[in-house]
Amino acid sequence: MHADLIAALTAIVGEGHVLTGHATAEYATDWRQRLQGQALCVVRPGSTDEVAQVVRACAAAGVSIVPQGGNTGLVEGSVPDGSGRQVVLSLRRMHAVRAIDPDNLTITVEAGCVLQNVQALVQEAGFLFPLSLGAEGSCTLGGNLATNAGGTQVVRYGNTRDLCLGLEVVTADGQVWDGLLGLRKDNTGYDLRHLFIGSEGTLGVITAASMRMVPQPAAQLTAWTAVPSLDAANALLALAHQHLASALTGFELMNQQALALVDLHYPHLRVPLWQQGPFCVLLEASDSESEAHARTLFERLLELAMEKELVLDAVIAESVQQAHDLWHIRESITLAQAAEGVNVKHDISLPISRIPAFVAETDAALHALLPGIRLVNFGHLGDGNLHYNAQAPEDMEARAFVADHEECIGEVVYRNVHRFGGSISAEHGIGSLKREKLPHYKSPVAMQLMQRIKSALDPQNLLNPGRVLVGPRTDP
Amino acid sequence: MHADLIAALTAIVGEGHVLTGHATAEYATDWRQRLQGQALCVVRPGSTDEVAQVVRACAAAGVSIVPQGGNTGLVEGSVPDGSGRQVVLSLRRMHAVRAIDPDNLTITVEAGCVLQNVQALVQEAGFLFPLSLGAEGSCTLGGNLATNAGGTQVVRYGNTRDLCLGLEVVTADGQVWDGLLGLRKDNTGYDLRHLFIGSEGTLGVITAASMRMVPQPAAQLTAWTAVPSLDAANALLALAHQHLASALTGFELMNQQALALVDLHYPHLRVPLWQQGPFCVLLEASDSESEAHARTLFERLLELAMEKELVLDAVIAESVQQAHDLWHIRESITLAQAAEGVNVKHDISLPISRIPAFVAETDAALHALLPGIRLVNFGHLGDGNLHYNAQAPEDMEARAFVADHEECIGEVVYRNVHRFGGSISAEHGIGSLKREKLPHYKSPVAMQLMQRIKSALDPQNLLNPGRVLVGPRTDP
Repeated sequence: MHADLIAALTAIVGEGHVLTGHATAEYATDWRQRLQGQALCVVRPGSTDEVAQVVRACAAAGVSIVPQGGNTGLVEGSVPDGSGRQVVLSLRRMHAVRAIDPDNLTITVEAGCVLQNVQALVQEAGFLFPLSLGAEGSCTLGGNLATNAGGTQVVRYGNTRDLCLGLEVVTADGQVWDGLLGLRKDNTGYDLRHLFIGSEGTLGVITAASMRMVPQPAAQLTAWTAVPSLDAANALLALAHQHLASALTGFELMNQQALALVDLHYPHLRVPLWQQGPFCVLLEASDSESEAHARTLFERLLELAMEKELVLDAVIAESVQQAHDLWHIRESITLAQAAEGVNVKHDISLPISRIPAFVAETDAALHALLPGIRLVNFGHLGDGNLHYNAQAPEDMEARAFVADHEECIGEVVYRNVHRFGGSISAEHGIGSLKREKLPHYKSPVAMQLMQRIKSALDPQNLLNPGRVLVGPRTDP
Repeated sequence: MHADLIAALTAIVGEGHVLTGHATAEYATDWRQRLQGQALCVVRPGSTDEVAQVVRACAAAGVSIVPQGGNTGLVEGSVPDGSGRQVVLSLRRMHAVRAIDPDNLTITVEAGCVLQNVQALVQEAGFLFPLSLGAEGSCTLGGNLATNAGGTQVVRYGNTRDLCLGLEVVTADGQVWDGLLGLRKDNTGYDLRHLFIGSEGTLGVITAASMRMVPQPAAQLTAWTAVPSLDAANALLALAHQHLASALTGFELMNQQALALVDLHYPHLRVPLWQQGPFCVLLEASDSESEAHARTLFERLLELAMEKELVLDAVIAESVQQAHDLWHIRESITLAQAAEGVNVKHDISLPISRIPAFVAETDAALHALLPGIRLVNFGHLGDGNLHYNAQAPEDMEARAFVADHEECIGEVVYRNVHRFGGSISAEHGIGSLKREKLPHYKSPVAMQLMQRIKSALDPQNLLNPGRVLVGPRTDP
């Protein structure tokens, strides 16, 4: 029977675009290499119509589908389970640009286009595509949409969903919904676009999207500050909102432990100011006028912040290279953590006002749980999004630390996240990694509504089953 | 049996909060006074728990519910049908502020709070709530959310949905979903918030919301320009995006016919520049620095636009009063139209780039259909949203014009909207007014998905039945 399906899929997408055996390995292993699944096959359609045919063929065979873009997700949501009975539907061949419309400030592009290529295409057209994240060289726009990716410019431009005006989606029964309208206002019924965005391939397969382009800023400026406390960091954020308004495009927090690891493993990066306070904040301003204007605003903001004792010390990058170097330090935290040894990661969000209390209480609880634990706390403070990670005490072996304490640390963190009105997944999604945890922290009413929507749009449970929601598994 | 239900509802909300007979009339008549329905009763709960009890009581009795806020909608979506068998659920008693959180830039408020009061509360807290529309003195936040209201500042701040971070909703089976998280990032499953927003009370009853507040601008400046064509208006918009960036908070288009009517009926308003070109554009800049800064930017923009021959002439308001007067002219178009006689209205949106061609072709088609027809075209060009209205030829009686030609004019307009990739309802919604038209212009796949969602979340079809989607009616 599987041979019949493979033959049917081959007839749809052509010889060479149905992979089996060893060729499927890279599609069946997740980005963090924690999960090695096994695919019945990988099918690589070249058009929306082929995607629809593939979905219909799988539905007819009762075989479930795992949609996949760049396979850079962090929650084990885009690889098949170990049953060998799931088809991976790779969108990577679909990377055409359907349209660029400068007067409407939109680009319409297929789901398999790599994010960096979308950025480049938009730049060539004279605009900015303001979605930017670590995996941008590999991840695809379809994956960004399926997981509602965040990144470093959310404080100004929002998450992926906020950049999307329309979608084309293949439904679970293999129909094509053409919702590729490039409209800023459309109140004709339920917002299907927002329902598919962030649903991690469990409700439909996104095949193309109309995305916003924004004007390129005339200048970008980056500053690095040491701050005396999280309360001060919050007050600095409020001041930056007030003085820079929409010119504020980045507001990144890093605690001393995070920067100490960067300094330890990459001393050539010369981390500024990290010993001067418990936290540093990186600020970015994108100005529509000129660098001189941006600099004046920035200097005024930082002077005021120093007067108010919100900032202990600050440097403003003097060149594009310096700005790049400062961002590079911020982006090296993850690597420095890895160099120090395996660790425990959490991608959480909170109301910004509650972050100081959350961090104080959670830090204390974890230090009580495991004296010497090193808490590496950094993230997008402007969005209330922390990467609140934990490294082994210096005298503990890293693998043992993770094996013995990951569950317990996670429970402390998530319990406090829940208590302070936060989210256990700010920007990475649920996938299969957090699906068992979700019901503990999300309201039963919300879980029930989600389950009803899943059943309504995918009654056979064929699309990425067992991701987001705990569903019937195909594992034997 | 209805007496039993009324007794049950009275037991829930208390004597005096269940209205019957004459007292229900204002709740049963729509804003434009085109529809006079009849309610079984009006029930006015005072808390979320009471709303949930009311929904459960109605569900048990098999009686459908029409949720209502300020009842200012324009598509006959918030009044009962004529059967006398629907309960109007008025949220107006629920107007408490649950929380204002300056550090998180959020306000959490109940659904029945009048929009103007939300604006005032946020202003008192030192911030701006940037949703603004004609009915703001009467409409409620819950109604704004249920219909995803737009208004005049969408070009900068988005529609109501873009200002909402979380909701509290009573579901069709009378459960309470507490989704009042004030988070900017939350990727824990399907976005229920966006599904309820804009669903016009057909999927759940919104009882409270967490909304964004934004910093107050330091200065606002308004300019009025005459432009030679729609292409020039579009080019001016692009230039304004580039030079003002996020400081651009308003970009309103008005054609000569619209301004001629204002000049005719309200000559004391002294409409500027309207005879100098086929269109005028009102621009608003909200500056985070100072009025002087805003003026410099504005003057530079307008000089450049005049060099490029995008603008024929321009005035910049010299005072807050002058700015107010210019906006008042823009807002008087609807009244001037009414003073001229009943007319045919369309609330449409299009990709901004296609507006010039759409208007040229649709103007021509309507002039061919009915020589002498006066097309009153104005709206939020920055969002691609036109109020493309038609007034009787000067020698035709207005009522006869509407009675004889409304359908046919609508068909021409909507057919072209569809052909140019637009929407037949940009900001007003579908209600019952456009529910029969919707399937002609929306894809069958989208209609089917919407129907499935409705059945999944409201299987008894108790919440605002027959609005948005054509459903079983309760009319005899």
